[in-house]
Amino acid sequence: MPVYTAPVDEVLFLLQDVFAYQRHGNLPSFQAVTPDVIAAILREGAKFAEDVLQPLNRVGDTQGCTRHADASVTTPDGFKAAYEQMAQAGWIGLVADPDHGGQGLPYTLGVVLNEFVSSANMAFGMYPGLSNGAYAALARHASPEQKNLYLPRLASGEWSGTMNLTEPHCGTDLGLIRTKAVPKGDGSYKITGTKIFISAGEHDLTGNIVHLVLARIEGAEEGVKGISLFVVPKLIPDADGNPGARNAVSCGALEEKMGIHGNATCVMNYDGATGWLVGEPHKGLRAMFTMMNEARLGVGIQGLAQSEVAYQNAVQYARDRLQGRALTGDKAPDKPADPIIVHPDVRRMLMNQKAFNEAARALVIWTALKADVARGSPDEAEKQAAEDHLGLLTPVIKGVLTDTGFANTVAAQQVFGGHGYIAEHGMEQFVRDARIAQIYEGANGIQALDLVGRKLPRDGGRAMMSFFKEVTDFVTAHAGNADMKPFVEPLGKAAKDLERATMWFMANAMAKPDNAGAGSTDYMHLFGLVALGYMWGRIAKTAQDRLAAGEGDRGRLGAKLVTGRYFMQRILPETGAHVRRIEAGADTMMALPADAF
Amino acid sequence: MPVYTAPVDEVLFLLQDVFAYQRHGNLPSFQAVTPDVIAAILREGAKFAEDVLQPLNRVGDTQGCTRHADASVTTPDGFKAAYEQMAQAGWIGLVADPDHGGQGLPYTLGVVLNEFVSSANMAFGMYPGLSNGAYAALARHASPEQKNLYLPRLASGEWSGTMNLTEPHCGTDLGLIRTKAVPKGDGSYKITGTKIFISAGEHDLTGNIVHLVLARIEGAEEGVKGISLFVVPKLIPDADGNPGARNAVSCGALEEKMGIHGNATCVMNYDGATGWLVGEPHKGLRAMFTMMNEARLGVGIQGLAQSEVAYQNAVQYARDRLQGRALTGDKAPDKPADPIIVHPDVRRMLMNQKAFNEAARALVIWTALKADVARGSPDEAEKQAAEDHLGLLTPVIKGVLTDTGFANTVAAQQVFGGHGYIAEHGMEQFVRDARIAQIYEGANGIQALDLVGRKLPRDGGRAMMSFFKEVTDFVTAHAGNADMKPFVEPLGKAAKDLERATMWFMANAMAKPDNAGAGSTDYMHLFGLVALGYMWGRIAKTAQDRLAAGEGDRGRLGAKLVTGRYFMQRILPETGAHVRRIEAGADTMMALPADAF
Repeated sequence: MPVYTAPVDEVLFLLQDVFAYQRHGNLPSFQAVTPDVIAAILREGAKFAEDVLQPLNRVGDTQGCTRHADASVTTPDGFKAAYEQMAQAGWIGLVADPDHGGQGLPYTLGVVLNEFVSSANMAFGMYPGLSNGAYAALARHASPEQKNLYLPRLASGEWSGTMNLTEPHCGTDLGLIRTKAVPKGDGSYKITGTKIFISAGEHDLTGNIVHLVLARIEGAEEGVKGISLFVVPKLIPDADGNPGARNAVSCGALEEKMGIHGNATCVMNYDGATGWLVGEPHKGLRAMFTMMNEARLGVGIQGLAQSEVAYQNAVQYARDRLQGRALTGDKAPDKPADPIIVHPDVRRMLMNQKAFNEAARALVIWTALKADVARGSPDEAEKQAAEDHLGLLTPVIKGVLTDTGFANTVAAQQVFGGHGYIAEHGMEQFVRDARIAQIYEGANGIQALDLVGRKLPRDGGRAMMSFFKEVTDFVTAHAGNADMKPFVEPLGKAAKDLERATMWFMANAMAKPDNAGAGSTDYMHLFGLVALGYMWGRIAKTAQDRLAAGEGDRGRLGAKLVTGRYFMQRILPETGAHVRRIEAGADTMMALPADAF
Repeated sequence: MPVYTAPVDEVLFLLQDVFAYQRHGNLPSFQAVTPDVIAAILREGAKFAEDVLQPLNRVGDTQGCTRHADASVTTPDGFKAAYEQMAQAGWIGLVADPDHGGQGLPYTLGVVLNEFVSSANMAFGMYPGLSNGAYAALARHASPEQKNLYLPRLASGEWSGTMNLTEPHCGTDLGLIRTKAVPKGDGSYKITGTKIFISAGEHDLTGNIVHLVLARIEGAEEGVKGISLFVVPKLIPDADGNPGARNAVSCGALEEKMGIHGNATCVMNYDGATGWLVGEPHKGLRAMFTMMNEARLGVGIQGLAQSEVAYQNAVQYARDRLQGRALTGDKAPDKPADPIIVHPDVRRMLMNQKAFNEAARALVIWTALKADVARGSPDEAEKQAAEDHLGLLTPVIKGVLTDTGFANTVAAQQVFGGHGYIAEHGMEQFVRDARIAQIYEGANGIQALDLVGRKLPRDGGRAMMSFFKEVTDFVTAHAGNADMKPFVEPLGKAAKDLERATMWFMANAMAKPDNAGAGSTDYMHLFGLVALGYMWGRIAKTAQDRLAAGEGDRGRLGAKLVTGRYFMQRILPETGAHVRRIEAGADTMMALPADAF
């Protein structure tokens, strides 16, 4: 049976010591919460994830969801009770607006809770996760009446949400969408079409399901400029807002898939379903994309979350499993063999995971704090800088945390040897579940293109220059500090690699755009390494300061310095290979005709 | 429905043009086969894999094996008929000794067929694969009577084989084996114990199953020096060699696992089963290990095989799927969108797979030819050199081809986007099946230790020096050739990285063995990159020679040169990151106490 302990102390160290979140006391969401309250909320959330959600993870995987003859869908045993408990405790509306029934807490806390929930039970976490996404889209784009109808019910968890983008012939290229919306004359539309891969599309957890659907209003322009966003409730609310008549939308089938079996991935059929326009006509894609940053950050967190829980289980196995003897002599002479954690190659796998998880969590929290600033700061300049950061870092977090997170689940499984391949230990489920995060919410190749093609050049490179300045200022500030040298020297080198790659794009991708495409994934990972390296720099500085001040847990802080140095020595140098690949350009990549493959 | 076309022309190009297998005409196994016969055998084998085995791959995955109340096991629908067809066509005994009913064909042909079978249906291919392993062990270590009894029946496929090493508490560390053998006084032994993860342990394909079992004779020394090898038939053969009385061995359970569902992975219970000693007492591990090279090469081939079939499907999808437009302008203006193969990042994934598959296949065939030499050459020096090569390259092929092969199945799945996560396209099965190859037959970390700790220093580094000399001689020989410069220049640099890493181990691992363990996996991959790079050098030279001579298919040969340059530019430079990690040593890796994880 897999184990999971939510890393509450890690989070508090990052929030309080590394990022000094207290300085955001000017934000409304932070005004209500004292450090004590934050710690208490995190410990409660941890308990819920560990005690309620984690035990349902394997049930969810083995049992999956079931579609019945009447097209209704039931979730695995225990999901409904857990969901009700989650809703009643107020977790679903944690960061939602108090005016709409939310608790108005910092977005950052929601993000942390998200990690805990995703580690404990990723498939389960998608149900409230999608509701949060639908809430965010409606909060931004819906009419006041729509907000009053939907937001409180999404925040309470009474209703849940979905996002309907993909169709059988189009995923990435949403300009090809065929789902049709015909005005009914009463302000509503008749929606007809088929959507696929709809997570949480049908289930038994809530009294109603609020589908957000991209469709083309009859006669609209072709391509992305003719797409509008609609809200299509499963049950049409009556005048009092209670679920009423069944709408003409139903789950045609559940997809059989590699993992996240506890989540119902549906083919959704819209057979003239009644929907209402959200926001302006033909601006649907823009509306959908405003919620993308948050959704993509959420998926990046899933990558970290699976990496963390897989790591925790690998550590426990490596401490318990006796096999072979240490190269340096017996470590457990009273036992028939040493625990495998004595073997360097097992350590290598564990240290890779640990060094990634701790920096990735820092990157997520750093970015989530920017999101709180972007949402609530009265200072326009600070707000703008935070939005720049979010735009730039979101594709990096989504792409790098899910790629590396997946690789880490595979490495954690490897620690188990043959036992990792067997279902009962749960390790192979982490691998199968983590895999989807690299694909959905924009496949990682799309994240890389978003970074290189849109986020990098935007506003004359303002966001990138600001990020780069922060990193190099940090390197410069600590260049003369002998204790910090093992951190800032490699970080400085990696930053130079990033600069060199950026300059290469500027010089070579304008005339030949394929050069940007050819290097985009390498650039995303190069960027991610620098960002994670910077996080280790910040963590190391904090650990050194606290050790010097005689504060904190010496063992924990000392481990931070070792782990950070491991990252600098063994992971960060990968930036060199990325630069070389980027500079190889597109020539050999694009030279072959399609039939030569 | 996934597609598969066995790469017969690729194999013939490698056999005939790159490695000029005709020069092995002195070997008995090659004397009987003309080039025409070889081509005909490969085309027949291809047809069998494509038409018979591949259509059963998904059935095998979805249906799996079933254990019945009487402990019998049935394989998925169609497996039995396919197995009988395979046996009747003589494929199972293809490379077995004609004196024992085999066809006596070159081992290399068996290896090629193995790739085709594993691409088409990896889980199925394990049944005859394990029989071949049991055949090899018995051919080497069994008594003449045992050989006469078992070898012809294994070669014909009438009976099948298994390997029983792992127990619940021991996998890698076989010194911990508890299964007990007590002499019965009639030359046989009573075997008692539990073995787990036994592939093909029980099934309905053959009239008998021949278990090779590691056990400790009562009173034997502890550790690996007290382990003996036994043959334990499921049905005890009568005086005529026909399956007789049921032995006290049975399948206690089937393991639920991540993939290879079509193969029965069994818990095998030996309840005082009758077994016969194979070879000398207490030398069982050595006997088992003599078949390891072949078995590990076979697993490496599984990595290549899954990479190849996943690649072929990704290519087809990338040609067919219309999504987005090329960065350089519309490529299919008459269609709603361009095929995704126009996008650089999709190309990147396909080219990575192609550049690996073609060189990996070369590496396998090069090494298989050495195995033929080692088996059959009358020249002792040539034989010794071939054995050196096999010893050195086997862990590299097992570790690198399965690690990279797995990564390639993941990349191929990624090309499909969301459709890759859905079971019906078969891509996620390739990922799940390929995953086991990194784990079984010695987890890849063990391969790396075998390479660094045993194969590298053996005989004063003779094998390594010989390999290194061959590579650097090639670089030197073509250094002045402008056409070869794009190949030998990067190869020379990579070889220098390998040399540097080797020297680093010599200087730093004697005094501190953890430094070898800490760098072993990086060293294995560094070695693999150099070996694959050398293969590309050989392929490129052959392609250039043939183009200059006006021979061969210009398109195919030209594509080789492009793909080889892609490898040199974008994959081979990873050697630099490996060296840097190796040189980082074990310090930060080993510094943390176990409870700091």
